Amino acid sequence: MTQSFPTPAAHARDLLDTLGVPARPADAGQAVRSPIDGSILTHVAFDDAREIEAKVAAARRAFDAWRVVPAPRRGELVRLFGEELRAAKADLAALVTLEAGKIASEAAGEVQEMIDICDFAVGLSRQLHGLTIASERPGHAMRETWHPLGPVAVISAFNFPVAVWAWNACLALVCGDPVIWKPSEKTPLTALATHAILQRALARFGDAPEGLASVVQGGRDAGERLARDPRIPLVSATGSTRMGKALAPVVAERFGRSILELGGNNAMIVTPSADLSLALRAIVFSAAGTAGQRCTSLRRLIVHESLVDKVSDAVDTAFQRLPVGDPREGKTLLGPLIDRAAYEAFVAAMDAVRTEGGTVSGGERLLADQWPEAFYVRPALARLPAPAPCMQRETFAPLLHVVPYAEFDEAVAIQNDVPQGLSSCVMTNDVREAEAFLSAAGSDCGIANVNIGPSGAEIGGAFGGEKETGGGRESGSDSWKQYMRRQTATVNYSGALPLAQGVRFDL
Amino acid sequence: MTQSFPTPAAHARDLLDTLGVPARPADAGQAVRSPIDGSILTHVAFDDAREIEAKVAAARRAFDAWRVVPAPRRGELVRLFGEELRAAKADLAALVTLEAGKIASEAAGEVQEMIDICDFAVGLSRQLHGLTIASERPGHAMRETWHPLGPVAVISAFNFPVAVWAWNACLALVCGDPVIWKPSEKTPLTALATHAILQRALARFGDAPEGLASVVQGGRDAGERLARDPRIPLVSATGSTRMGKALAPVVAERFGRSILELGGNNAMIVTPSADLSLALRAIVFSAAGTAGQRCTSLRRLIVHESLVDKVSDAVDTAFQRLPVGDPREGKTLLGPLIDRAAYEAFVAAMDAVRTEGGTVSGGERLLADQWPEAFYVRPALARLPAPAPCMQRETFAPLLHVVPYAEFDEAVAIQNDVPQGLSSCVMTNDVREAEAFLSAAGSDCGIANVNIGPSGAEIGGAFGGEKETGGGRESGSDSWKQYMRRQTATVNYSGALPLAQGVRFDL
Amino acid sequence: MTQSFPTPAAHARDLLDTLGVPARPADAGQAVRSPIDGSILTHVAFDDAREIEAKVAAARRAFDAWRVVPAPRRGELVRLFGEELRAAKADLAALVTLEAGKIASEAAGEVQEMIDICDFAVGLSRQLHGLTIASERPGHAMRETWHPLGPVAVISAFNFPVAVWAWNACLALVCGDPVIWKPSEKTPLTALATHAILQRALARFGDAPEGLASVVQGGRDAGERLARDPRIPLVSATGSTRMGKALAPVVAERFGRSILELGGNNAMIVTPSADLSLALRAIVFSAAGTAGQRCTSLRRLIVHESLVDKVSDAVDTAFQRLPVGDPREGKTLLGPLIDRAAYEAFVAAMDAVRTEGGTVSGGERLLADQWPEAFYVRPALARLPAPAPCMQRETFAPLLHVVPYAEFDEAVAIQNDVPQGLSSCVMTNDVREAEAFLSAAGSDCGIANVNIGPSGAEIGGAFGGEKETGGGRESGSDSWKQYMRRQTATVNYSGALPLAQGVRFDL
Amino acid sequence: MTQSFPTPAAHARDLLDTLGVPARPADAGQAVRSPIDGSILTHVAFDDAREIEAKVAAARRAFDAWRVVPAPRRGELVRLFGEELRAAKADLAALVTLEAGKIASEAAGEVQEMIDICDFAVGLSRQLHGLTIASERPGHAMRETWHPLGPVAVISAFNFPVAVWAWNACLALVCGDPVIWKPSEKTPLTALATHAILQRALARFGDAPEGLASVVQGGRDAGERLARDPRIPLVSATGSTRMGKALAPVVAERFGRSILELGGNNAMIVTPSADLSLALRAIVFSAAGTAGQRCTSLRRLIVHESLVDKVSDAVDTAFQRLPVGDPREGKTLLGPLIDRAAYEAFVAAMDAVRTEGGTVSGGERLLADQWPEAFYVRPALARLPAPAPCMQRETFAPLLHVVPYAEFDEAVAIQNDVPQGLSSCVMTNDVREAEAFLSAAGSDCGIANVNIGPSGAEIGGAFGGEKETGGGRESGSDSWKQYMRRQTATVNYSGALPLAQGVRFDL
Repeated sequence: MTQSFPTPAAHARDLLDTLGVPARPADAGQAVRSPIDGSILTHVAFDDAREIEAKVAAARRAFDAWRVVPAPRRGELVRLFGEELRAAKADLAALVTLEAGKIASEAAGEVQEMIDICDFAVGLSRQLHGLTIASERPGHAMRETWHPLGPVAVISAFNFPVAVWAWNACLALVCGDPVIWKPSEKTPLTALATHAILQRALARFGDAPEGLASVVQGGRDAGERLARDPRIPLVSATGSTRMGKALAPVVAERFGRSILELGGNNAMIVTPSADLSLALRAIVFSAAGTAGQRCTSLRRLIVHESLVDKVSDAVDTAFQRLPVGDPREGKTLLGPLIDRAAYEAFVAAMDAVRTEGGTVSGGERLLADQWPEAFYVRPALARLPAPAPCMQRETFAPLLHVVPYAEFDEAVAIQNDVPQGLSSCVMTNDVREAEAFLSAAGSDCGIANVNIGPSGAEIGGAFGGEKETGGGRESGSDSWKQYMRRQTATVNYSGALPLAQGVRFDL
Repeated sequence: MTQSFPTPAAHARDLLDTLGVPARPADAGQAVRSPIDGSILTHVAFDDAREIEAKVAAARRAFDAWRVVPAPRRGELVRLFGEELRAAKADLAALVTLEAGKIASEAAGEVQEMIDICDFAVGLSRQLHGLTIASERPGHAMRETWHPLGPVAVISAFNFPVAVWAWNACLALVCGDPVIWKPSEKTPLTALATHAILQRALARFGDAPEGLASVVQGGRDAGERLARDPRIPLVSATGSTRMGKALAPVVAERFGRSILELGGNNAMIVTPSADLSLALRAIVFSAAGTAGQRCTSLRRLIVHESLVDKVSDAVDTAFQRLPVGDPREGKTLLGPLIDRAAYEAFVAAMDAVRTEGGTVSGGERLLADQWPEAFYVRPALARLPAPAPCMQRETFAPLLHVVPYAEFDEAVAIQNDVPQGLSSCVMTNDVREAEAFLSAAGSDCGIANVNIGPSGAEIGGAFGGEKETGGGRESGSDSWKQYMRRQTATVNYSGALPLAQGVRFDL
Repeated sequence: MTQSFPTPAAHARDLLDTLGVPARPADAGQAVRSPIDGSILTHVAFDDAREIEAKVAAARRAFDAWRVVPAPRRGELVRLFGEELRAAKADLAALVTLEAGKIASEAAGEVQEMIDICDFAVGLSRQLHGLTIASERPGHAMRETWHPLGPVAVISAFNFPVAVWAWNACLALVCGDPVIWKPSEKTPLTALATHAILQRALARFGDAPEGLASVVQGGRDAGERLARDPRIPLVSATGSTRMGKALAPVVAERFGRSILELGGNNAMIVTPSADLSLALRAIVFSAAGTAGQRCTSLRRLIVHESLVDKVSDAVDTAFQRLPVGDPREGKTLLGPLIDRAAYEAFVAAMDAVRTEGGTVSGGERLLADQWPEAFYVRPALARLPAPAPCMQRETFAPLLHVVPYAEFDEAVAIQNDVPQGLSSCVMTNDVREAEAFLSAAGSDCGIANVNIGPSGAEIGGAFGGEKETGGGRESGSDSWKQYMRRQTATVNYSGALPLAQGVRFDL
Repeated sequence: MTQSFPTPAAHARDLLDTLGVPARPADAGQAVRSPIDGSILTHVAFDDAREIEAKVAAARRAFDAWRVVPAPRRGELVRLFGEELRAAKADLAALVTLEAGKIASEAAGEVQEMIDICDFAVGLSRQLHGLTIASERPGHAMRETWHPLGPVAVISAFNFPVAVWAWNACLALVCGDPVIWKPSEKTPLTALATHAILQRALARFGDAPEGLASVVQGGRDAGERLARDPRIPLVSATGSTRMGKALAPVVAERFGRSILELGGNNAMIVTPSADLSLALRAIVFSAAGTAGQRCTSLRRLIVHESLVDKVSDAVDTAFQRLPVGDPREGKTLLGPLIDRAAYEAFVAAMDAVRTEGGTVSGGERLLADQWPEAFYVRPALARLPAPAPCMQRETFAPLLHVVPYAEFDEAVAIQNDVPQGLSSCVMTNDVREAEAFLSAAGSDCGIANVNIGPSGAEIGGAFGGEKETGGGRESGSDSWKQYMRRQTATVNYSGALPLAQGVRFDL
């Protein structure tokens, strides 16, 4: 079954060299581990308060210069970054695999998403459109313009260690904003590698200001420090609802903006008219892909009562057959969980299912003999007779809950009856169900799909969700507006001074 | 000089009768005073916790019905409301004068703004446009739709006692959201009158759900209760920065949205090329109009050093000549401050100017003999040799600070160097200065005008500001999006299941 | 069965009086007939060349004044017009019935559409949005503004004698353009009545320029004269493809713009998953409603072979039962054809079906004894074994062709295989068929519906079609742009003169 | 003064080889001359009717495949084309210089414009946004989608031999449309070279359909053949007003769309507040650059009477000093006219000035001894006391007319009083003049600039003009919509069939 690979540490060092990340003295700072075998990849030093302060101050200075660089010229930097990413795609993807444990295809997909957002942002650089507006006063011109906002802090999570930063950074840079990146402490290397790739683009670009993009290595403290800093008008944070609940008030109190991409608890409704073969593939990919560690992973399956056994059995069988193992191997579809804590949460969640009247199949730990500090599991299917409290929580692991429904409206109600609001989908061939699901009375999520799973968004749409998911939107549509400030201007070119709403005030 | 008017209380009772507000037993609840003479207009009972709970619960129930009413039909309600407002314009304006002390023309202008936003919202009801988006996957269709959000709490301030609610309510109703209004405890009557007018529109409309619009009378407690309520996804609050600083984290912690319209500290730059006659009129209206009690009132005047004495003297003279008095009189341009606290803040602010090296002219209290509990003042001009700490604060009164500048860049820097970011303007006939002021390196405010004062926005643009002003936007442009939730949908109508970013996951 | 009504002439005179159209000497000019009984309603004088010239010249003068009236103020005129239409709705609808023969409900719907477009246009008057655009050059600002275009000629057809003009006129007026209306020579009275209603709005408005809106009575010559006039930058013409083919080159040669709303040949596909009850109602309304005289009337029915007999029989039965008669009677659903020529074309089209291998049921002339000069018919169903040449032509009458199909792709191909491209629809409950029909490879029409008939568009969308339908779009979405000219402006506020694309040209 | 260059023919052959254009047998077909010395570069065969037919048929077939390729994937082709253009920039620019006579910097700028539009179109490929629209009917969803249109014919002119095609082609390809290019018969080689570059992109792309892009070599006949072809729904033609007048009716008669970019007669107003140094540079570049052969070249100068002599003298002096010569030389700012006919038109236009009371300075032919068949001229300044008939015509040569004005309104009237409406500008530092010029009552051109000349548009804005300029818009803003067809769809997902506008039709 096994190909032969270098040790993760050696492999990572190789890739970092190729990607241009300078070697640091070993054993200093925080240990970075590979979820593949639990081994230490290297150590990374955390930034202290003084270093963070210097990076924020540099970003603030960079802003004064960057905001007056014409946006299409700013787009040129992102275009060059896209070129460099294309060149480094395979290596960066390999590093994502080593550090985050993603299978090769998904790691490549993640880098592709960075490339896509570069292309998109380059186009945007000539389309940061405000409006010209007809004034009610003669000889007056109104217009709305979007201006650069200031330094943006991006706090990203381990599960999309590079793409989420790219969503934010490419838009921010085009919008005129410096970017300060605090990656997850679990994935600092991919951040350093990405930063090195960006440096090459900056070198080719020529005259970007110092401090335009920086990486702050650190944990929760570093994130909170950025959240509190009044020089950072926008904090874009991806992570748990708990993290968001702590961060959001801190930013709000100083009148900063947040983009929050927090937990999901994503459901699929399978109706009688569904194409079951399509549904099965969608279920397995979205529940077990990325080891269930996507914000958009499928966690709840709501199946018409006439099909629930058939669908559950088919999923069960597919779960049993899924190739689990070293994500570097071509055949592997399911790599490791990120760490022991993730595994323990998975076990606890399965226990909760059983406590609340459900049964669980799958969920065994695998390869523990070979790699006692790596956490491979078989995906688990939790069958419940009805929605239960355990289904209200997001567990970042391949655990799929199944419940039956009788009427379509009931299925939608179950889908909506959780605190999170990220992604959702329905498998149906019935126009009425599909459109009802997408209507004002349908799914309450930010993402609602028909005949595809809840995960795997394209960059052209706005990504994010409602309720405890935090309300943020990233990537496409007019998400870019969050990275800019809006100015409403009226110019009086008449010699007179009429007042709006017909008010008279004659001296 | 004086016409003869009924007592404010009698006048108010008359207007309330005409406007259809049922009489309540006298002396119950909170006293409502007219700033015209300090007399009690009536008493209004505050809602207790149980009443507020009932109104929120009703709004939540109304939401389920209202969200599926087609938006153009929802627009019909707002159209009828506009008709009723047109019919009631004079009476509602008179009540605004009695309760908030605005002069007749400005009170009429405020009601006109309500009417304007009705017309605008009716148009919007067929234009709540999302996007259709080309998918990267064959046989897939992407689209973005905006759906109703849920009940909206509107917390409004005394100085625009009806228009700001209307900005929010007309958009919210068209967007499918019930509205819960907590007016300022200083202006409960205009809220009741507006509510009565809306009831007439609702009666003509026919089948709107119960609880679609309600008024919660109360103070700070009531506002905080609404801010904390998880059934209210959006809180739109107008008031002081202090209020916003308290409210924003409360809403953020529960992942609600806020629209904050907080303090302004608005400046005008007068350059050598300015039309001084136009500038003078703009200055006097925007500094002294509404007794300096607009969020957008002019508070800081930044004049080129070659003109500063000339302009200051002319403003001084105009201030001296402004007719101050009962706002019901046709000739009056400057009515009373809202209450004693406002007067005391005005006096304190003038003291601060003197302490910090400035001189103040004007600022005397007037008509105190006649109405000891009413606070009429002559507008005050504070001349300072350079920006001083007293200019960092907003005082809600007709106090205008003047400082000189030498270079245009310096003037822009002075303009930007305050914590607030609402409105700003430049009086110039020089294209380069005008455009520089409106550029990314120019004014940092949400509103930036050329050759008009900072106040008096039209409803077609987005209204609001940056920094401590709170970042909210109301009224025109795409402000309506805040009242809706965004849904990104992808529909797969092919028989295949391709993944985005070229990811492969073949079972 | 029959209620008692006044004679059409007396009825019309009454309505014209009420609507404020001044009486003219009888027997002068062109006879106007009622299709109800073929009787003469009155006579209307055609404008001669001198009168047309005067109206165009007046419109051109009015343009100079109207274009600088602020758009929101222009919107106020349209708002007042909407109010007047609401007041006159019943009377104007009754006149539409008399002159065009529409049943009461449809005539009322047509006036409602005028009212709807007024509301929509009022909202637009503050939303004629151009764009602000980031320039690639430092110190430069780009923006796009939409300005008034000039006088617009509206050439309308008998079948929507007032609504189509209103679609154009309300947008044109808000956009700053005077309007010259040449109604069909078959429906001059409704035009005069509408014009009188608009005069009332103009009188209330107060200061609109003379000549802002005018009516030119005349035939084809008058239309061509307007089409040729270089002072009229936009000609919006509704009518036959033949008319459009003649007009379009005339306008194009002088670089004018056309909005052409020409013939449709609209189809419905009925698939196996369709809700047949819904389909039947949609078919009968869209094929027989307005006596088949809508541009969007259903003319071709493409039914899955498994259902074709069942559906055909059901339509046949429904056709047989449809109450045909005086459109003023409450029970009538099918009024008269407009005139003898229409009847003859209907007969010829049925003959062609038979010649080409089809069978026809229905199609009898009715009530000929009672009203020999009025043309009532029973709707006709033409069953054909396969698409035939007779199905390539539009006949403005209630004649519905049915053909079977086997595969969905084939049905779409049949739908698209005609020269016209206005409206189309599919009755299906299958998501895949619905979305495929709406996709790039689906219907080639401007309008494509799912589970509703091809007729009865809402004003919020753009209305119009492709191919021989002429390509024009009216009413909603950004149709208003056609009534304005686009200006792309760049303002250099730097002291330097950089060239775009990095060109260097140093003197 | 002269560097040593290879002969144009040898130079061209070299470049064609490098660019990948296969060699053809010499002396066949139409001679292609270099305006540099009048020598023959090579011969190119014109396509005959059969070849054109084959290319149109292939494009039509390609359309069926290309329209269902997802737009972001279509964007990938354009991205690759941009990469190839970056690689070939210097060579293609050199060929532009040889064939069109442009100086090196302008030729490079032209290729840069192609590259810019590639970047822009790639971004657009995920942003071909239609709208989702709230329906007035419950249980109905409305949306507007933009679909591919069909093959686009691009007829381009010699003066922008490659960029104008790229504007059209990049948008068309992204929009899903095949492109058939008929270049000017004066510049067939740059078209072949561009086509070869595109072939490389197509090869890397992999699976684009045959016939997606083709070049038709030919003269007026070939253009008319394309204009007449009903399989080509859009004809985008750049050239003279005469050409447009012939083409437009042909396309209109078959209900095709045209994008016409025809003659300009562009003016600059110089006001008393203008920065004269800036103005002078703008005048000389825009009047003499590209030897006055841009559609946007400056042809009319309208100078305040107080400055007219001073400005005229300064322009005269600058014209005298402009380095004229072989455009391949680094110092040259003014290359040759395209051919003898252009020179003769130039001479005739100068004669007309003199006949109509003006004086002309400059205008001498240069280097005729060295290159008798090449037409180098000194730019000419025509001073006229008032607007004259000669100023109504566009002459494609460096001839600048100057007239004085007294009042600003008069200057605007002069600017507007020509049949063309492409580009315009004002040099002023006065806000009121600048904004008035850009207002509804200001310039009537499609392009209106402040403090830059009329030429040198950026690709982010819509490019084109009004009146005899033809009304087309290319490149930025929403110009892409012309390359697509709009579909308005309504989906009924309720079980009911309500009609719009409240119409009732109950069977």
